[in-house]
Amino acid sequence: MTITTDRSWETASRPDTPEGWVRRAEEVAAVLASDAVQRDQANEAPFAEVALLKRSGLVTLLGPPEHGGGGADWVTAYRVTREIAKADGSIGQLLGYHYLWNWLPRFWGTREQWERLEAEAAREQWLFGGAVNPRDDDLVVRDAGDHLVFNGRKSFSTGGRVTDVIVLEGVLEGTEDHVFAIVPSDSPGVVRNSDWDNIGQRLSESGSVELHDVRAEWKNALGYVDKKFQPRVYNTLTTPAIQLVFVNLYLGIAQGALQTAVAYTRTKTRAWLHGVTDDPLDDPYILATYGDLASELYALEALVDKAGEEIQRVHDDPDALTERRRGEVAVLIAAAKIRSTRVALDVTSRIFEVTGARSTASALGLDRFWRNVRTHTLHDPVAYKLRELGVYVLRDEIPQPTWYS
Amino acid sequence: MTITTDRSWETASRPDTPEGWVRRAEEVAAVLASDAVQRDQANEAPFAEVALLKRSGLVTLLGPPEHGGGGADWVTAYRVTREIAKADGSIGQLLGYHYLWNWLPRFWGTREQWERLEAEAAREQWLFGGAVNPRDDDLVVRDAGDHLVFNGRKSFSTGGRVTDVIVLEGVLEGTEDHVFAIVPSDSPGVVRNSDWDNIGQRLSESGSVELHDVRAEWKNALGYVDKKFQPRVYNTLTTPAIQLVFVNLYLGIAQGALQTAVAYTRTKTRAWLHGVTDDPLDDPYILATYGDLASELYALEALVDKAGEEIQRVHDDPDALTERRRGEVAVLIAAAKIRSTRVALDVTSRIFEVTGARSTASALGLDRFWRNVRTHTLHDPVAYKLRELGVYVLRDEIPQPTWYS
Amino acid sequence: MTITTDRSWETASRPDTPEGWVRRAEEVAAVLASDAVQRDQANEAPFAEVALLKRSGLVTLLGPPEHGGGGADWVTAYRVTREIAKADGSIGQLLGYHYLWNWLPRFWGTREQWERLEAEAAREQWLFGGAVNPRDDDLVVRDAGDHLVFNGRKSFSTGGRVTDVIVLEGVLEGTEDHVFAIVPSDSPGVVRNSDWDNIGQRLSESGSVELHDVRAEWKNALGYVDKKFQPRVYNTLTTPAIQLVFVNLYLGIAQGALQTAVAYTRTKTRAWLHGVTDDPLDDPYILATYGDLASELYALEALVDKAGEEIQRVHDDPDALTERRRGEVAVLIAAAKIRSTRVALDVTSRIFEVTGARSTASALGLDRFWRNVRTHTLHDPVAYKLRELGVYVLRDEIPQPTWYS
Amino acid sequence: MTITTDRSWETASRPDTPEGWVRRAEEVAAVLASDAVQRDQANEAPFAEVALLKRSGLVTLLGPPEHGGGGADWVTAYRVTREIAKADGSIGQLLGYHYLWNWLPRFWGTREQWERLEAEAAREQWLFGGAVNPRDDDLVVRDAGDHLVFNGRKSFSTGGRVTDVIVLEGVLEGTEDHVFAIVPSDSPGVVRNSDWDNIGQRLSESGSVELHDVRAEWKNALGYVDKKFQPRVYNTLTTPAIQLVFVNLYLGIAQGALQTAVAYTRTKTRAWLHGVTDDPLDDPYILATYGDLASELYALEALVDKAGEEIQRVHDDPDALTERRRGEVAVLIAAAKIRSTRVALDVTSRIFEVTGARSTASALGLDRFWRNVRTHTLHDPVAYKLRELGVYVLRDEIPQPTWYS
Repeated sequence: MTITTDRSWETASRPDTPEGWVRRAEEVAAVLASDAVQRDQANEAPFAEVALLKRSGLVTLLGPPEHGGGGADWVTAYRVTREIAKADGSIGQLLGYHYLWNWLPRFWGTREQWERLEAEAAREQWLFGGAVNPRDDDLVVRDAGDHLVFNGRKSFSTGGRVTDVIVLEGVLEGTEDHVFAIVPSDSPGVVRNSDWDNIGQRLSESGSVELHDVRAEWKNALGYVDKKFQPRVYNTLTTPAIQLVFVNLYLGIAQGALQTAVAYTRTKTRAWLHGVTDDPLDDPYILATYGDLASELYALEALVDKAGEEIQRVHDDPDALTERRRGEVAVLIAAAKIRSTRVALDVTSRIFEVTGARSTASALGLDRFWRNVRTHTLHDPVAYKLRELGVYVLRDEIPQPTWYS
Repeated sequence: MTITTDRSWETASRPDTPEGWVRRAEEVAAVLASDAVQRDQANEAPFAEVALLKRSGLVTLLGPPEHGGGGADWVTAYRVTREIAKADGSIGQLLGYHYLWNWLPRFWGTREQWERLEAEAAREQWLFGGAVNPRDDDLVVRDAGDHLVFNGRKSFSTGGRVTDVIVLEGVLEGTEDHVFAIVPSDSPGVVRNSDWDNIGQRLSESGSVELHDVRAEWKNALGYVDKKFQPRVYNTLTTPAIQLVFVNLYLGIAQGALQTAVAYTRTKTRAWLHGVTDDPLDDPYILATYGDLASELYALEALVDKAGEEIQRVHDDPDALTERRRGEVAVLIAAAKIRSTRVALDVTSRIFEVTGARSTASALGLDRFWRNVRTHTLHDPVAYKLRELGVYVLRDEIPQPTWYS
Repeated sequence: MTITTDRSWETASRPDTPEGWVRRAEEVAAVLASDAVQRDQANEAPFAEVALLKRSGLVTLLGPPEHGGGGADWVTAYRVTREIAKADGSIGQLLGYHYLWNWLPRFWGTREQWERLEAEAAREQWLFGGAVNPRDDDLVVRDAGDHLVFNGRKSFSTGGRVTDVIVLEGVLEGTEDHVFAIVPSDSPGVVRNSDWDNIGQRLSESGSVELHDVRAEWKNALGYVDKKFQPRVYNTLTTPAIQLVFVNLYLGIAQGALQTAVAYTRTKTRAWLHGVTDDPLDDPYILATYGDLASELYALEALVDKAGEEIQRVHDDPDALTERRRGEVAVLIAAAKIRSTRVALDVTSRIFEVTGARSTASALGLDRFWRNVRTHTLHDPVAYKLRELGVYVLRDEIPQPTWYS
Repeated sequence: MTITTDRSWETASRPDTPEGWVRRAEEVAAVLASDAVQRDQANEAPFAEVALLKRSGLVTLLGPPEHGGGGADWVTAYRVTREIAKADGSIGQLLGYHYLWNWLPRFWGTREQWERLEAEAAREQWLFGGAVNPRDDDLVVRDAGDHLVFNGRKSFSTGGRVTDVIVLEGVLEGTEDHVFAIVPSDSPGVVRNSDWDNIGQRLSESGSVELHDVRAEWKNALGYVDKKFQPRVYNTLTTPAIQLVFVNLYLGIAQGALQTAVAYTRTKTRAWLHGVTDDPLDDPYILATYGDLASELYALEALVDKAGEEIQRVHDDPDALTERRRGEVAVLIAAAKIRSTRVALDVTSRIFEVTGARSTASALGLDRFWRNVRTHTLHDPVAYKLRELGVYVLRDEIPQPTWYS
């Protein structure tokens, strides 16, 4: 498979501009696209794909340059996530989630922690995953003196078997204090189940994880100093930041669907037997449908890019973040979530109208875009994003920070 | 598998009312629903399913009672198709197509032909298929004196390996005369390929068929008397009649999707973590979404039923059919095609909003409804149905009879 | 004005079939259509229009034939309402509401009451109105021995100055008993204000009414015998019955909009300067849009007709009505309300796309369809109809009878 | 009326930043909003409104600072147009069109011409209009030696009676050369008819204009040097530039509609009688609808702003403009046209769902937003914008420059 054998990126120099990184992502996406359908059907753990992400430098995109990282900002990380998602929604998800967890020390940690952890992550090319799903019971955390001990289960943990490190989140026994810690994925007691078998995002390794007396060091308990946590508003930006990962995922998948459809229509679609033109590329309805779908994507992309720029401004000065500002960013991203959900479902279902009857062959796998979007857009109900935005518009109230808003 | 072992229907008495037949169809549908997901994934030729359709009497629904048929009308046949499609779109397609091809001797044949063929079909419990797809080149038909010889290839031929007889359609060499003939599916020279592997309607056996010097008797060349064909308007009702099969298929699949979703929401969906009610069955957005989807289905069903009654009136007096009346029926069915396409795509994609994130598990196969609808609704482009209806409304012109309108 | 001078209907014989009445309604609609735009702009009380409805026999459509009524059923009454609404939404509303109030003695009264009141209504050609709006405070009703005395105010009372009789609804002082009574519109103490000035349904005379010591006889207090009320399920069918009036109104207005647009496009729309055809009637986008709008109306009409037939079956045997059956009919009509609201708004706004820029001239008044639909569809929030239908589908619960469900 | 009496802006200092100009526009909009409904109903020529635009400095926004102009760029001009349109679509149209015609010397003229004309326009506070409508026959232009003579008629000429100068466009007799010239609106032979009476944009003074031997000086024939015209690509940017005026108009009107609805719901909407909350501001359906409408507007605004920035980059270096680049900008603006048409129609029609039944009172004039959008979005058929974008996406072809693309 191309993915495993092409080593050229290892020796190529790393990009040093945002445009360079996006181009790099496009190149990686082209490799992923070449057998995305087969890999979707084979449904195997994406070790080769992750190796590709590492070789190409994308895994360390956000890392400090002095430790081998790309030093890029979030605008670039979102763009890169989107590019990968165009070709392979699952790998886009893996990478986007990774960026978020990789950034977690910044959101929650002390300066010492994030400087240390980011350096190590970049040097070691860690792929991050997270055992955080808030819909499950909280993990139970025991203070064992110089370290913490985690126990519990999370139904969904993107990354699963292909991650190097994993973010744990639980509640300290006898308190209501939440604590994040980062541990090696192969730590004793971490059981990553391969029980993710869903209709979409099949290679995202989003199966369950069990934690049996998993030991984490206090020094990696983010934001804790002398076992006390110092909250700040920037902590809560985690949710909007990952919601915007989702949004870029949906946009990317939908753009990938349209691109794939265009390539198909250009080369394979036949003029309709009783159509009004001999050339399918001149069929008035095919053209209008492409125009309709593209116009939706243009508007969505503009909104997603704007949200990326907004959140970047917050990252640029995290300590200046007020609750109001955090709320406004969250609302903007909620709007992007709403639109991306709708547009991506619409585009990925309607592309078939412009590719035609034979394009439903399983070998083409043109349904994977819809399956991917349909699966992930259920992460949290979009109806409550509509409500959130409505509350803001009608009552001028910002959302309460939660793991979903 | 239940399908193969339950013989009780063989001894049960046959229904003798439309309501009885619909109930029978519901019972068969319940059997099909029990393992529809697994069968969709296994993707094997539906021999057992067809046996069930025969045992239950559904295959001979339209046949003359004196030869063991159900003697039902088309209103019932459409309703039965719809019921089966609720549980299994593929089997609904097999059955609906079968009804159409089973009726072909009426549409095209002489009285002698249809009386003879319908009797034999009912006695022998034939499942019909067709090698007719008009988007391929016409089959070539040679007049070999007392019989005809067919050669050629059709890319799609629903029923394939599970049919008993197959309708061939071609052009007599040296003429522009089309001829329909019915031959046993296992006739020498008939090659039914198992090359149907598409994202939806997976068990519909819609693979290609090749015809190498396939012999058909002149007496089974529909409507030909002394090798001359006598056209009548009723011939051309074939197209609206099968288009209404499609429409019932889409309606049935969408209704099945909603039913399946309701059962899931009632038992498995959880209240949203940050929702406004503790009971998911009281969540305002879940309720409104169900109301929205149901209202679409109610309107669609009313239209589809109306179209069924309209076309039945034509069947009741086929010789009275005028071109204008045929056109009006075709237009009504075109409208039903448009709405059923839109509504079925919408419902089958949006049910997930009311079932939630965990409902995307492959084992539940909740995506099969969308895959089925998406696949078959591409049979012919709905854009041209919009046009057809627009021409009628704006210019008061009826559509030209073709294989698609 | 044609409306006031044409007396021919007075001498013409009355229709005696449903089709005859629909044709009659079409003739009346044609008269109304001829100057509907000017009358909408002039915004005067529709005395002439009501006179036309009386002369043509439509006002007495539901009345007993032996007293000069048409003896028609509700299927016909809904169809007639719809036909009138095609030409003039306001007059359709006046007529449809009239039918409902005219039927109120059946819904709520004793046999003696409805036989007497229907006879008198038919003989005197009463146009009914109602002072019932449940969103205002209840009218206060005082028992004054042999008669009742009503006091209070209702913000909206369709029919206002042009009615002959008016239905009052209030609560008997010191009780929680509601009472309906019918009084002459010019009874002492009835003040009908001409304060209805809204963007749509401008001639519906839906202004406020004040009641100052208005006297009603106990014998006209519907359903009261010896000052006691005997409830039955059929009472509560009033709400579904009037909701279906609304639905027919919206359907009719939307159908009228499409008809008007067709006539305009045929004669006045120009081919687009850079279009793909020279003939606007052949423009692919104009045709597809007409097809789209028409398909929506076809589905809606089928649903509305089905609902009409369903409710008629209840009227045919009112004493057999169970709460469950009442609920099912209400739910079906709720579905029709949802679809009619959506479709009518869509059609009346989008017709402009197929008529073109010059069709926005005020003199054409092509916006009146949207204004009419937009105004009346706010009668009660459609969101709660979605919910009502959702509760039924998801929980199998019928709606509680109220003035809105 | 506030508009005519408030002189304070005359003495206030002019803004000198984009934000300052937007704020200034908001202030002007607030004045316009205060009686927008009444002025829409009165339908009188907007002399006072134009005086306000002049006093506030908005008319000279694009003019050279050294001659009293604001020296702003197009990003600001579009933003200002949008702000005014929020309050009053007609005045937004007058101002947006003015900006375009005011810029015409840059698009088509020589440096001498645009420097001279912009200086004079700023000094004299000219409001520009145009007699250009391409759907009418071309004006006939006669070369009369040192001057040109225009004859003909244009059906629509925004600005009409309230303009100071008017752009004429015609074809030189005996040639196929088009020529633009600018003449005083009160030039002999210019007849501005007050025949604009449409359902929306009522104060935009878009009536017809007749030209009887209207004399224009050769020196004001844009781009002509010694009676020869030198074309350049930048000429053709005129169309995308004015299309983006339209887009900002639609966005502004829709945003104004939402703002107006919010203010109404907050203060006047009542909780639904059978609703699930006592507070209308907490009604789940009202909130979700606001969220839905707002999300559409957020995405649209992002796209429109992006298009503004793109076209500004072209204005920044007009001579660098290639045909390809011009085409890409045109396509982006076509996408914005599509979305703005759809979103603005949707928002302006659906606001009523969240304001409620009483909000249809004529005195509130809440329908004016829909009437305004509905009227102007028919300027050229959006179906052909879908096609234009489809051609670009599917065939990678840019649109041919015309007056509409």
